Amino acid sequence: MLSQNDLIFLENTLSFWDKIDKDKQSKIISNTINIKYLKGENIYNPTKECLGIILIKTGELRTYILSEDGKEVTLFRLNANNVCVLSSSCILKNITFDVYIDCEQETEALLINSIAFFELINESVYIENFVLRNTVDKFSNVMWTIEQILFMKIDTRLAIFLLDESIRLNKNDLKLTHEQISRYIGSAREVVSRMLKYFEKENIIQLSRGTIKIIDKEKLKKLI
Amino acid sequence: MLSQNDLIFLENTLSFWDKIDKDKQSKIISNTINIKYLKGENIYNPTKECLGIILIKTGELRTYILSEDGKEVTLFRLNANNVCVLSSSCILKNITFDVYIDCEQETEALLINSIAFFELINESVYIENFVLRNTVDKFSNVMWTIEQILFMKIDTRLAIFLLDESIRLNKNDLKLTHEQISRYIGSAREVVSRMLKYFEKENIIQLSRGTIKIIDKEKLKKLI
Repeated sequence: MLSQNDLIFLENTLSFWDKIDKDKQSKIISNTINIKYLKGENIYNPTKECLGIILIKTGELRTYILSEDGKEVTLFRLNANNVCVLSSSCILKNITFDVYIDCEQETEALLINSIAFFELINESVYIENFVLRNTVDKFSNVMWTIEQILFMKIDTRLAIFLLDESIRLNKNDLKLTHEQISRYIGSAREVVSRMLKYFEKENIIQLSRGTIKIIDKEKLKKLI
Repeated sequence: MLSQNDLIFLENTLSFWDKIDKDKQSKIISNTINIKYLKGENIYNPTKECLGIILIKTGELRTYILSEDGKEVTLFRLNANNVCVLSSSCILKNITFDVYIDCEQETEALLINSIAFFELINESVYIENFVLRNTVDKFSNVMWTIEQILFMKIDTRLAIFLLDESIRLNKNDLKLTHEQISRYIGSAREVVSRMLKYFEKENIIQLSRGTIKIIDKEKLKKLI
């Protein structure tokens, strides 16, 4: 059962709410449940069955693609008040690529059943519009990521990543292995390690086991 | 003035035609012109003004992204009966990335004025959905390209490209420089040259000035 707060959250997050009739609203409500994901959990991948539409209350999800030999490329991250539709990509006939979704920070969310939502997309042009617009927004995010990977020099990418992480977590000590960074920025681990050592020599960061401490933010910003 | 054939083409290509009223249909008709592009012409780039929606009758357009140092990555190609909306990306508020569009084969098309179309998008959710759906389709194309670039080995990418080109042009003699191939498959020219020489040694292709002749299609297919 959804609480009163859940209902308000649903109405506020689904921008088409006022444009659909009471029957469709009821159908959404009766097909929505509360869900929790744990940090580190893989919540969606191409071999799993269709998950549904996720409305994030708190936490963080990371969407990525994965090569056959295990190379990951992060496409985008989703946080509080974001709606994840690619977790239901199986019902979206225009989406023909496979994504993986991991829970990066403990996440509380509402989950709308994918079969019910698929029916609703076909019944209401406004619901279809919501899903399409959400996907097109992600397209822009993905293009930004891809341009960074394809075009940007590794020092710039690493500098952007470290700055983003320190802003996101609001601290200068980042608990990250070189392996993790290489996955996030889509580059080889050896290349990341070499560049981190160069940053240390330049007194931009300080390296210790499993931790990277940013000591000169201004120098880091100049690399961007 | 549009001909009777143009009107039929317009109605068949714009799948929302029956869902909009006569006023909106008239508005589209009066804001549409016939246009021709020459092979090799750059028809759209981020510094040019908004071009409009292109409905291709015959020919081929290539959409790509370009780095500051001139590296190109082809995102997708559009042919007869395809609709190009990214040429009007300036009016699409969800699209925040820049694309370039070149004419690859002499193209005849209908062009709908972007300002008029922007108004129509805001007036009809069916027209908006058409544009969004078209963009989401491209998202899938782009993801396929990106996965190839990020994950696939250079020999596989080159084999796919050569086979695609020979099917597309229906011939085994391909007029292509190594420079062009490197742009199309998003890899360094030196790497492409080395791989082409390897293909020649394996009796898969024959190289001569500006031409690549495919002599063993089966071997090429085995690389994929």
